[in-house]
Amino acid sequence: MSSQYPPSLRIRLPGLIFFLEAAFILIFFFFFSYDHQSVQKDLAIYPAFQDVSIMVVLGFAFLLAFLRRYGFSSAGFSLFLAALGVQWALIVNGFIFHFSDGQVKINLQSILAAIMSITAVLISAGAILGKANLMQLICMAVVEVAVFAGNRWIIVAVLGIKSHISLMHVHLFGTFFGSTVSWFLYNSSQHPKVEKERSKPASDVFAMLGTLFLWTFWPSFNSVLVENEEEKMVAIYNTYFAMATSAVAAFAFSKATSSDGTFHMAHIQNATLAGGVAIGFSVSIIQYPWIAMTLGLAAGAGSVLGFAFLQKRLKPALRIHDTCGVLYTFGLPSLIGGITRIILILIDSQEDLEGMGYLALIELGASCAIISLGLMAGFITGFLLTFEFWKAPPITKYFDDQAFWEFPHLAAGY
Amino acid sequence: MSSQYPPSLRIRLPGLIFFLEAAFILIFFFFFSYDHQSVQKDLAIYPAFQDVSIMVVLGFAFLLAFLRRYGFSSAGFSLFLAALGVQWALIVNGFIFHFSDGQVKINLQSILAAIMSITAVLISAGAILGKANLMQLICMAVVEVAVFAGNRWIIVAVLGIKSHISLMHVHLFGTFFGSTVSWFLYNSSQHPKVEKERSKPASDVFAMLGTLFLWTFWPSFNSVLVENEEEKMVAIYNTYFAMATSAVAAFAFSKATSSDGTFHMAHIQNATLAGGVAIGFSVSIIQYPWIAMTLGLAAGAGSVLGFAFLQKRLKPALRIHDTCGVLYTFGLPSLIGGITRIILILIDSQEDLEGMGYLALIELGASCAIISLGLMAGFITGFLLTFEFWKAPPITKYFDDQAFWEFPHLAAGY
Amino acid sequence: MSSQYPPSLRIRLPGLIFFLEAAFILIFFFFFSYDHQSVQKDLAIYPAFQDVSIMVVLGFAFLLAFLRRYGFSSAGFSLFLAALGVQWALIVNGFIFHFSDGQVKINLQSILAAIMSITAVLISAGAILGKANLMQLICMAVVEVAVFAGNRWIIVAVLGIKSHISLMHVHLFGTFFGSTVSWFLYNSSQHPKVEKERSKPASDVFAMLGTLFLWTFWPSFNSVLVENEEEKMVAIYNTYFAMATSAVAAFAFSKATSSDGTFHMAHIQNATLAGGVAIGFSVSIIQYPWIAMTLGLAAGAGSVLGFAFLQKRLKPALRIHDTCGVLYTFGLPSLIGGITRIILILIDSQEDLEGMGYLALIELGASCAIISLGLMAGFITGFLLTFEFWKAPPITKYFDDQAFWEFPHLAAGY
Repeated sequence: MSSQYPPSLRIRLPGLIFFLEAAFILIFFFFFSYDHQSVQKDLAIYPAFQDVSIMVVLGFAFLLAFLRRYGFSSAGFSLFLAALGVQWALIVNGFIFHFSDGQVKINLQSILAAIMSITAVLISAGAILGKANLMQLICMAVVEVAVFAGNRWIIVAVLGIKSHISLMHVHLFGTFFGSTVSWFLYNSSQHPKVEKERSKPASDVFAMLGTLFLWTFWPSFNSVLVENEEEKMVAIYNTYFAMATSAVAAFAFSKATSSDGTFHMAHIQNATLAGGVAIGFSVSIIQYPWIAMTLGLAAGAGSVLGFAFLQKRLKPALRIHDTCGVLYTFGLPSLIGGITRIILILIDSQEDLEGMGYLALIELGASCAIISLGLMAGFITGFLLTFEFWKAPPITKYFDDQAFWEFPHLAAGY
Repeated sequence: MSSQYPPSLRIRLPGLIFFLEAAFILIFFFFFSYDHQSVQKDLAIYPAFQDVSIMVVLGFAFLLAFLRRYGFSSAGFSLFLAALGVQWALIVNGFIFHFSDGQVKINLQSILAAIMSITAVLISAGAILGKANLMQLICMAVVEVAVFAGNRWIIVAVLGIKSHISLMHVHLFGTFFGSTVSWFLYNSSQHPKVEKERSKPASDVFAMLGTLFLWTFWPSFNSVLVENEEEKMVAIYNTYFAMATSAVAAFAFSKATSSDGTFHMAHIQNATLAGGVAIGFSVSIIQYPWIAMTLGLAAGAGSVLGFAFLQKRLKPALRIHDTCGVLYTFGLPSLIGGITRIILILIDSQEDLEGMGYLALIELGASCAIISLGLMAGFITGFLLTFEFWKAPPITKYFDDQAFWEFPHLAAGY
Repeated sequence: MSSQYPPSLRIRLPGLIFFLEAAFILIFFFFFSYDHQSVQKDLAIYPAFQDVSIMVVLGFAFLLAFLRRYGFSSAGFSLFLAALGVQWALIVNGFIFHFSDGQVKINLQSILAAIMSITAVLISAGAILGKANLMQLICMAVVEVAVFAGNRWIIVAVLGIKSHISLMHVHLFGTFFGSTVSWFLYNSSQHPKVEKERSKPASDVFAMLGTLFLWTFWPSFNSVLVENEEEKMVAIYNTYFAMATSAVAAFAFSKATSSDGTFHMAHIQNATLAGGVAIGFSVSIIQYPWIAMTLGLAAGAGSVLGFAFLQKRLKPALRIHDTCGVLYTFGLPSLIGGITRIILILIDSQEDLEGMGYLALIELGASCAIISLGLMAGFITGFLLTFEFWKAPPITKYFDDQAFWEFPHLAAGY
């Protein structure tokens, strides 16, 4: 079962991968070593590290596996992007945040920050799922990780936001970056067939598996890098409550917005996670469960409403084709979370009117920086990806594993 | 692909959910806050908390996904019941066990107790799997969680049984409650077709995934709330050994009881777990691995024998239709475990004949209370669920995702 | 849907299982008790214990589930072998390594060592996947666990290698043992049909699930028994980096070696894991990330090259039919890892020429002992398995769940 690919990609893709990997190893050789000073701390967070690792690798791999003919690519490419992206994120983060005396010391927290950074790449990959080959995804990952790290430098070093909170912007950044890239990769006028864009029962259950991993382990994602132990527990509680109510909201709104009163799997798979995204920014400043619950409810509701009413309208209007609906799974909840944080800060500092305005402005500035840099970098990357060099799959091969994989047909010669 | 549902459920179900969720948030607003005193302890049990969380959410969601056309509902409704049920269980447990000075303080142990309480709901959902809509499941969850909490109050406050042991009655309670409810929802004379009640190869593998999660993480379920560290480790060891032998017994008995010498997937998926259920009551008083092994072997054997010989007979005799076989997966092993605990207490206190009789009586009393309250509450709930109000699915729509979900058909307009 | 099995296996298999299980329980009764001295240590490693447990049980069960008609057997038999094998491994390891005063004390580390030992059985089961019934697999497991424990005694007690490093030989042993056994079970001249040996899309995604679990939790496997905390963290880092680069290498080489430029799922599922296997031996002596990365890259590359070029040639030449390709997933990377360790020792001890030769010789001796004992024991076991007693499935029933399982057909009477 041969794919109709030009054989040159057979050389070009491995070539690109070897070039990158050789460069990475050389950079690690000259600059990177292990940090032996943080052993106790690293051992303490190792269980949560594994939660985050399985959530990012396995959770996203399966969350994206909902298309009926794209399970191999969804799971496989996610794994690849995670494996390559972590190395690159370590390099970029290392030089920006941890470079001293000509050396970068790695510990478990830096690997964690790298894993969390590549969430942006996996979210963007969701937006262009089925429309790009691995060459293009690699290019996107390299640009996106670097820009996101630079972006974090701005909001950490310039705006003074805490490092672990800066990582919570990953959802917002990944969404706007990916949506802009997708603008370049899809022209609906050329592509009347949408059959392959649908799910099938088994692929929907696989996606549900990804959802359940992400849903269960999200408290670890939001809390693992919080240093203060009391704040860490509060972060865990808050995320748990927000996840619980956003799951409830997903079902209620999915039913309410459906014309025939059925649930939509896409809503359940995605809006369920909105609570964890939205509460990320405020995870250790919220002091009461009811606030987390309300925020989760609002985020879940917003996510389903986005899927139900915005998705159809955005496609023709803005020509954005967002395969996985990351705008509504990660983008909208992230905005709701950002606004909530600003409101919480405003309420919290009622006495001190000047400080209040200042802090709120900083938060607003951080979010605007993230969004505008995401849009700009996405625009440039999207433009780059249209080059002939990447040998992008033709639009008729979109959403199809057979464009990339030796596929197990009954009559195949495997 | 429209379902033939009356559109009124489109309003009624979201309405019910919003009403409940609004009530929950209000109650949390007035009475619930975070407990900052148990940070160290909470951090220490957080990894095991995640084990239990993934086991209850993901394990049950997939264990119940064995029906050929009911994967969406099994996974989706389990997630919903977990998300809503945990909030309700926190409220009920909070007011019964942790209310002081007009406040309830939440910590990770209370969330854990809530997650473990909703295991009862998920077990009962297994008994009526495919026969109830989400409205009915919500009603059942609300009643069941409340009655189970009241029941635990009786056995903890009145009979003086330890709180974490009282949670081990969750399997017994869920089984008897769910089986009684199922008595109202299924009349085999009206339903000659059983095709949709079967599994298919892929759905059986999904169910096996759930089994493996439950099997692996059960030691955490049985040990996480044990306070004494030595007893906690013994609980882990004992559960591990009981799980190992019940898995072995499941294979041996499945082969031996089959007329053509084949294994039955239903036996393997379920009887494998019997060891963990049975040893729950005695998890930290068993001092030798061989006792745990023997108990696991007996529980696994009992579970398969129940499936093989009781299931067919109970259906016509008692008119109990237990879709998932929870009577044999959780009920029977639980009974075996309860009897074993009484025997162990009797043996342990051979010298002190009076004390022995007393303790054994208390254990017996606790089990009887659990069973009778489960039966009574199940009876009332089952009766409630037959009301027209819930717009129960017609019997021809049983075991079918298409009654509830926008389903991905090739020709669907999704 | 009756299988054409002689009914006698219905008695013989349960009989064998009961005999073994009764023997195990008796041995545990007379000799085994719990160790209460290591509670603190056990609690500290419990999260990593669960990682390893889920990795071995669930990871292998699904990694082996790639065949289109063999999902039940792959998942089910893996669970069975794990459950039975752990008990037997505890017994054998206990008498060899922990017997004192007529007693064996069990703690979490001994259970861990037992779980890690049965990895050998699961690897061997991969080599003969689809070609043996459960009787034969039990026989193989009993012999293999015992020989591997004896082998470890030689390299620990005689050659002085650390106990946790000796467990890293499990991949090498399992591969050579299993490949030799497979030599007896498959004669390609008798079996022209290979349709059932292929995967199908859904089974490949299930196998990918196993891969992702193994990939994510491998750092726990390689580090959990390392005692020194600093070395443990280094083991985690090194494994993480080796896994990352072997995943990258798998994609690059899979593309490069394919005649039509497609990725092969078998390469991705398996070569991805080569890094973790290869680095096992040297996991706490490698001091720089670039070494781990290079080793992972080499192992991933070697694994794919083995699949692509050796597999087709070995089958006719040596008449070894290795269903799952364990020679390339575990064997080759293990050899690469062993050679690397010897080189690292040589480099490390440049000053001390005598010591260097000695240590390198010991490592070489250990690997040779493992390989030769694996081959010998595999040869004897393979020969044993050809006996009529086991009622081996006929070659036409290979790779088929229906030979062993009540299978859910539409028309089945289940």
